[in-house]
Amino acid sequence: MTTRNLRIVVVNALIHPGSEDDEAMHAQVERARILRLGLLEAGYDIVASLPPDMYLPDRIAQLQPDMIIVDAESDARDVLEHIVIATRDERRPIVMFTESEDTASMEAAVAAGVSAYIVAGLQSDRIKPVLNVALARFKREQKLLDELSDTKSKLAERKIIERAKGLLMERQHFSEEQAYQKLRSMAMSKNLKLSEVAQRILDVEDLLG
Amino acid sequence: MTTRNLRIVVVNALIHPGSEDDEAMHAQVERARILRLGLLEAGYDIVASLPPDMYLPDRIAQLQPDMIIVDAESDARDVLEHIVIATRDERRPIVMFTESEDTASMEAAVAAGVSAYIVAGLQSDRIKPVLNVALARFKREQKLLDELSDTKSKLAERKIIERAKGLLMERQHFSEEQAYQKLRSMAMSKNLKLSEVAQRILDVEDLLG
Repeated sequence: MTTRNLRIVVVNALIHPGSEDDEAMHAQVERARILRLGLLEAGYDIVASLPPDMYLPDRIAQLQPDMIIVDAESDARDVLEHIVIATRDERRPIVMFTESEDTASMEAAVAAGVSAYIVAGLQSDRIKPVLNVALARFKREQKLLDELSDTKSKLAERKIIERAKGLLMERQHFSEEQAYQKLRSMAMSKNLKLSEVAQRILDVEDLLG
Repeated sequence: MTTRNLRIVVVNALIHPGSEDDEAMHAQVERARILRLGLLEAGYDIVASLPPDMYLPDRIAQLQPDMIIVDAESDARDVLEHIVIATRDERRPIVMFTESEDTASMEAAVAAGVSAYIVAGLQSDRIKPVLNVALARFKREQKLLDELSDTKSKLAERKIIERAKGLLMERQHFSEEQAYQKLRSMAMSKNLKLSEVAQRILDVEDLLG
């Protein structure tokens, strides 16, 4: 656990500019107030409140928040798209508060990796537990994704190494052990990973036909 | 999407039998009522309401519910243990409603794979969206877990096949291609997977030293 407060970026799905719908504007302001209050009470820092536009990825890269909260009164698929782009290279916990019960939007958000999706649950005293659950869920999912990516890399590397070994065995009439030792010594002398040396051998073979 | 209603098992963390705490009993009854109302309105079937005891795994195996909802007013780590055992062999979406803000319990629940963990949010009109999000989240996580398990199996199988191939190449002076064809023909004639034939070859080698 860090001792500093969690740093939050809030993304507001703004009312259409020039809208003269006073009631919708009022609801929006009230939602923002509840959210701020809940975050304040929970001891979090709002480092920025941003619109979901093309500048969002850059702003998030600059601010490096611990969490992104999306306050989207209605259907937020366009907002989600911006956030997905903004966190593609570096995943971050995302929490969405919405009033929309649209199932397709919800499924798109969960599939995009949103850590918490809360329909009609924006109450200041419930924000802290919601964010805590979202953080725990993000950590669990990140662990799973890391393990999956690690296992996939291992499988891909092994395929490359075995192909290179097979090539050495056939071309140089090496035993399996000899082929493996050859790869190892090349890797050590060039300070490369075994799979990198293997890939170079396969690349040369490709070039020479 | 199925046309039939979702079949739900509710697990109640019961008030201690013989308890004379009327207020706690009343709160428990009220929570159960809100939950039933919400499920009814959402069009779900409660197929059973069960205590978290040693019979739970058998009952769940018999009932094969689409989802398990845990209504646990206070700390529910003991309840969670029973549920984890009951869904170890066949994962099911689990939703926990609790009034406890205890972080360790929450983290244990998320780590155990609970699809939704809701603190102080048991309101009948919010139950349907919560269950929908939980289902979507369960599906996403299941897909990830399946992909991980599949990739791990492929990696393990490849290791076994490569070891068996290497053995054939050394012992029988086969080329890599010949060793692979040998494994393939053995697998076909015995109607086994390549990795199963490879494992048998390694087993025999182990026996013979």
